[in-house]
Amino acid sequence: MVAARGFEDHEYETRIANAQSRMMELGLSALLLTTETDVRYFTGFLTRFWESPTRPWFIVIPLTGEPIAVIPSIGADLMAGTWISDIRTWQSPDLEDDGVSLLCDALDEVVPNNGQIGLPDGHETQVRMPLADLMRLQKRLEPRQIVGDHGILRDLRTIKSEAEIAKIETACQIAGRAFDRVPEIAKKGEPLDLVFRRFQMLCLQEGADWVPYLAGGAEQGGYSDVISPASPKELVSGDVLMLDTGMVFDGYFCDYDRNWSIGRPKHSVADAFKKLIDASDAAFELARPGKTAADMFHAMNNILSVGGPDTGAGRLGHGLGMSLTEWPSFIPTDHTELKPGMVLTLEPGIAVEGKILVHEENIVITDNSARFLSPRAGRELQEI
Amino acid sequence: MVAARGFEDHEYETRIANAQSRMMELGLSALLLTTETDVRYFTGFLTRFWESPTRPWFIVIPLTGEPIAVIPSIGADLMAGTWISDIRTWQSPDLEDDGVSLLCDALDEVVPNNGQIGLPDGHETQVRMPLADLMRLQKRLEPRQIVGDHGILRDLRTIKSEAEIAKIETACQIAGRAFDRVPEIAKKGEPLDLVFRRFQMLCLQEGADWVPYLAGGAEQGGYSDVISPASPKELVSGDVLMLDTGMVFDGYFCDYDRNWSIGRPKHSVADAFKKLIDASDAAFELARPGKTAADMFHAMNNILSVGGPDTGAGRLGHGLGMSLTEWPSFIPTDHTELKPGMVLTLEPGIAVEGKILVHEENIVITDNSARFLSPRAGRELQEI
Repeated sequence: MVAARGFEDHEYETRIANAQSRMMELGLSALLLTTETDVRYFTGFLTRFWESPTRPWFIVIPLTGEPIAVIPSIGADLMAGTWISDIRTWQSPDLEDDGVSLLCDALDEVVPNNGQIGLPDGHETQVRMPLADLMRLQKRLEPRQIVGDHGILRDLRTIKSEAEIAKIETACQIAGRAFDRVPEIAKKGEPLDLVFRRFQMLCLQEGADWVPYLAGGAEQGGYSDVISPASPKELVSGDVLMLDTGMVFDGYFCDYDRNWSIGRPKHSVADAFKKLIDASDAAFELARPGKTAADMFHAMNNILSVGGPDTGAGRLGHGLGMSLTEWPSFIPTDHTELKPGMVLTLEPGIAVEGKILVHEENIVITDNSARFLSPRAGRELQEI
Repeated sequence: MVAARGFEDHEYETRIANAQSRMMELGLSALLLTTETDVRYFTGFLTRFWESPTRPWFIVIPLTGEPIAVIPSIGADLMAGTWISDIRTWQSPDLEDDGVSLLCDALDEVVPNNGQIGLPDGHETQVRMPLADLMRLQKRLEPRQIVGDHGILRDLRTIKSEAEIAKIETACQIAGRAFDRVPEIAKKGEPLDLVFRRFQMLCLQEGADWVPYLAGGAEQGGYSDVISPASPKELVSGDVLMLDTGMVFDGYFCDYDRNWSIGRPKHSVADAFKKLIDASDAAFELARPGKTAADMFHAMNNILSVGGPDTGAGRLGHGLGMSLTEWPSFIPTDHTELKPGMVLTLEPGIAVEGKILVHEENIVITDNSARFLSPRAGRELQEI
């Protein structure tokens, strides 16, 4: 089963209506959006061109009516293919005025003099435009004020529609087929960097559009770190190889990993791995509407820690979707309530004899429980 | 020839010394850096983990002495493998204080009460931390001020060392070998999205670490747009296929494209392609220290436009290196002087019968001329 590409227009209309209803409650006259994910969320504008940091892109969501795209002319044709009809372009890059005046004019039209403009400013957000231009914009808009978005984007994006879940599940299935084929590309004597390159090829061969993220490691009985690029070190007996991929299907990510022992693992390693699976299973069993992100943390941490050392990861899972990682975080202080439609990773980690092991699965919260989107791993560490 | 991985420590020491000398001139007590490229430029910290927007990362460059890394604990091990020795970590994500206090303390130590902290704020920059946290930081640092970096990062990063140029040239060679093999993967009847996936596999097979960017198109006699992802439309006779890749070797990008005609091209298309090559050749012949980015624009535009319509791209080339695109821009108003060590793309575009064609090459400015880093294309549009 491969999910459909794109969305029906009503998906975007629902997103806009939900945003506008929250804006009304909060007294915001407009939202100003600048990042790849926030722009795409309301428009469907999907391009890898965001890799270029040169040009800013803006979407204005007025309190009523349709979004206004204020974008570089290089994107006019692609934006015209989306459901957006109010598209205003300038010839970017412009060293004197890179869209600021055009954006100001658009905000002038939809924001009254005493109005407030919400710009996402909280945890896990960034403003993707030069800071000096943001300051210029704020000055020119006075007495209108740019304020935070009060978490509107977080709250909306955290709950996925059925169509979004289908895309994430397709990404998970593609990664699952690629993971199943790892014994074809990784064995004793193969350098880790070659394994990384070949694994990305497998993801593409199995249907990934592109592979924005791959990390992992392979050392004796575990690894030191889960964010490093690959070294040319050859795999040897006793290594635990971990591959963690975030690859995309139609702009939606999976984010999970798999572990393999090169040859027979030590008992301590095999046992530690079983604990990881027990931890993610415990969290999965608990996961349902009404439980919190903190509950997920404790369900896993109760099994993992038992006074053991910390892996340094800072959390035991998180949201995912249009980004590799999204709100919430499985930490003791995140009391976000789980709701149907949340897509989450369970990511327990454990330290064993100076190394770490990390396992990760992707799930979705349903009406009264949870469902695996990644093909659930067994308790036995696989051998290659 | 494959460039060495990593850099000798003196490369970083030179970068720091150059930054500190500019900071002294400009009266800055510290630089505060938040983006993947700026952090890596001074530390060598190379990871794909920046794909996750969750955690902020900070580097402080004091006016004298060594950089201070203020980073999430998940990056401690990888940062410890770089030349940086002053590494301060916190358990991120922290919803109450995601590094702000720790960063404040570091800046307190190195910035006097009346001091200024330079944060890149100009064209092609972004601040990669939540805006609300930046505001909190500014308030807590008072009376110290956060100001712009006066283009220090732009000026430093624009001039590449021999070691950086070697990495970009290696990336260009890898892409060149992948482009040479396109006839293996693209022919009449193949869907464009499959060609895109296979091309990324070729890049990986030929030695790319990863492929952050691929765009292109294939329509009758040209394409409508150069930033779209691929559609499943099958290639047919008369299409011009264009693939434009930014893939990386050891964190450095190439960024160039190639065009192929599916079957024999129309005369108008073949002639338009020759004009593109003539335009990039004209810019190449002119490129040398003392000429400007605007000169490059005019050298190409004189050949391309002759009153013709615009392609909407907004410029005819740009810098590249640690990012897919960097300063300067080949536009009439960018008077940046070319200097030895600048790596640039020549990217002429032309409109022909309602479609566009774009050609791109990568060059480096030498002591008295320029040198191709990409394998220079000929004037004949290749047929498949």
